[in-house]
Amino acid sequence: MRTLTILGSTGSIGRQALEVVAAYHPEVRLGFLTTNANVELLAEQVERYRPYGVAICSEDAYQAFRERSRFEGPILCGAEGIAAAAAWEENDVVLSALVGFAGVAPTIAAIERGTAIALANKETLVVAGELITARAQERNVPLLAVDSEHSAVLQCIVGESPHTIERIILTASGGPFRSYSPEQLEQVTPADALRHPTWSMGAKITIDSATLMNKGFEVIEARWLFDVPPERIGVVIHPQSIVHSLVEFCDGSVKAQLGVPDMRLPIHYALTYPQRRPTALPRIDWEQLRSLDFEQPDTVRFPCLRLALDALASGGTAPASLNAANEVAVAAFLQRQIRFLDIARVVERTLATILPSPMTSLDALAELDRHARFEAQRIVRQLQQEG
Amino acid sequence: MRTLTILGSTGSIGRQALEVVAAYHPEVRLGFLTTNANVELLAEQVERYRPYGVAICSEDAYQAFRERSRFEGPILCGAEGIAAAAAWEENDVVLSALVGFAGVAPTIAAIERGTAIALANKETLVVAGELITARAQERNVPLLAVDSEHSAVLQCIVGESPHTIERIILTASGGPFRSYSPEQLEQVTPADALRHPTWSMGAKITIDSATLMNKGFEVIEARWLFDVPPERIGVVIHPQSIVHSLVEFCDGSVKAQLGVPDMRLPIHYALTYPQRRPTALPRIDWEQLRSLDFEQPDTVRFPCLRLALDALASGGTAPASLNAANEVAVAAFLQRQIRFLDIARVVERTLATILPSPMTSLDALAELDRHARFEAQRIVRQLQQEG
Repeated sequence: MRTLTILGSTGSIGRQALEVVAAYHPEVRLGFLTTNANVELLAEQVERYRPYGVAICSEDAYQAFRERSRFEGPILCGAEGIAAAAAWEENDVVLSALVGFAGVAPTIAAIERGTAIALANKETLVVAGELITARAQERNVPLLAVDSEHSAVLQCIVGESPHTIERIILTASGGPFRSYSPEQLEQVTPADALRHPTWSMGAKITIDSATLMNKGFEVIEARWLFDVPPERIGVVIHPQSIVHSLVEFCDGSVKAQLGVPDMRLPIHYALTYPQRRPTALPRIDWEQLRSLDFEQPDTVRFPCLRLALDALASGGTAPASLNAANEVAVAAFLQRQIRFLDIARVVERTLATILPSPMTSLDALAELDRHARFEAQRIVRQLQQEG
Repeated sequence: MRTLTILGSTGSIGRQALEVVAAYHPEVRLGFLTTNANVELLAEQVERYRPYGVAICSEDAYQAFRERSRFEGPILCGAEGIAAAAAWEENDVVLSALVGFAGVAPTIAAIERGTAIALANKETLVVAGELITARAQERNVPLLAVDSEHSAVLQCIVGESPHTIERIILTASGGPFRSYSPEQLEQVTPADALRHPTWSMGAKITIDSATLMNKGFEVIEARWLFDVPPERIGVVIHPQSIVHSLVEFCDGSVKAQLGVPDMRLPIHYALTYPQRRPTALPRIDWEQLRSLDFEQPDTVRFPCLRLALDALASGGTAPASLNAANEVAVAAFLQRQIRFLDIARVVERTLATILPSPMTSLDALAELDRHARFEAQRIVRQLQQEG
């Protein structure tokens, strides 16, 4: 038996993880399930999957859950409750599927405990990749990405020596606006941006996919997960989302991992790695597949990708500022305070304001995060006035 | 230092292997180089690559070489000479790059010595896969395919458990006549068939690629090399020859190996497996690559593929008869005795004449091979008379 705690069980990844565990992992015992505030779904999950305990971030939601649920296990509350669930001593694996900077602290709490991490929270590595991968290495903690792209890379390098990796090529669907003109991009609404052509995901990551910021984040993640310098990580647009990423080796050979776009496969793989175990997940239909298309990303129309690559090149705290500004900008776009192309403007102006400094500690990082958010919010208001 | 003997050093694979060894394998010492009769090129190779010895199959060519060359190492002659070179006790690896049934005996001689085999001779596994893989396993001899397709499979399964392989999908360029109508296929000449769209290879294999018999052979090879039942091996047409083959695993994940069509890479990989070593071989140009296309093979227009799959399903000696008939038919086509579509007719009628029996010994196989060739030659004459 292995104990798995899911941070963010009511989100898109969390829900699919529960499905995968129920279908294919009879040896897994569920530790804690956590949610920000979706206690209705949490109550259903508790009934159905019978975890050891739960943690609820929002105080009000915690009270509501206590009143309506007959759940008899431990019920933790607040950010500390989430961190305690992450650091529970009986965890063997923690699936970190929280959204945004909020995922960083609990992920670190689990690493400090020496627990293996299945990492679906991109921001953890974007803002603190250098610190976190160093810490995970010190504690000999496996850090497995649950992203389809990084899972693809992981699958391609199984059995290969790390020093033979010449280049990592991350594929990007290009999002719903891949072929939009700059004029069309000015007009897109949150509803347009939330209609992703190939992947069904949460709102934040769907917007990040539409701006290509998500792909920039993934380059940063890949840099830390696989210890490959930024100039050896490329991005190629592949609209069908069948090829999930590729690795070029020092002899000129390339390996790719393919599959239908379905997050359950990378979640499952993170739980079986480096082994495999049968699933009934959908297969590629070779009789129907006609073509796999590729094109170069356009960082003029999609400046967020360039901003992310620049932040990675700047190093230090630049990616953390990038992430903070992006979280603020995406939220403002979803609330219709700014327009789609303003997301990149907010990020660019924030990065111009806050000069990068070396990454020293997680406390300094939290302070920087607050500062960058404050700046980004100021820029959002500026843009609204310019409007 | 490792000693490498190349059976068929003057052929297409042999020449490229010498190039690869000179460029990337300073630790390799050349044992024997062998040729059927191309002593001019052999003399050049001896000058340039300085092997320990040579073996020449044709008696006349042997005499000619003795007279003109000042080579001071051992010079062996005849089929026995080739077999002796293969079985030389100082060999660490034997690259078997002979063409046709002639490659079987020396490959077995090397296996019996316990020498690792880099196998570019398809016919060895087509006619005697069952016997040979069993013998190689008994003697704990690695049998590494040098084909781009099987090398791709090998690269995809490095680090994976064999029992997790669900399906192997071999890619085929489709050859020069992929989009020809049956009427057009009736008219094609040897010169047309020798113009392969993506691969530069010897004459026999180029014709086999045009009929898709080559792909049928590769299915048979894959069946033995990877111990996967025939129904789990598929073929997909991929005209660009960039994806060299794919492996589907039990969880639904697929891995593919890609590269520019260049036999030097699989030759190099067979010499470094399971490691990799840097090369300056050409890379895929991701900025130029637009699409990877796929389609289903058409076994009505290309019956040789079906004949090969049927022979594999029949089992026993059927694939050996298939191969013998095909060698005769291809030679007759190259000599303009029969037409392109007659190749399949010769094979089909030969297989209808010689009923398959269990595979008992290599001696019985040689007898069967003679018998099938005799029948195939008779059918060639029949077709000429009908023609």
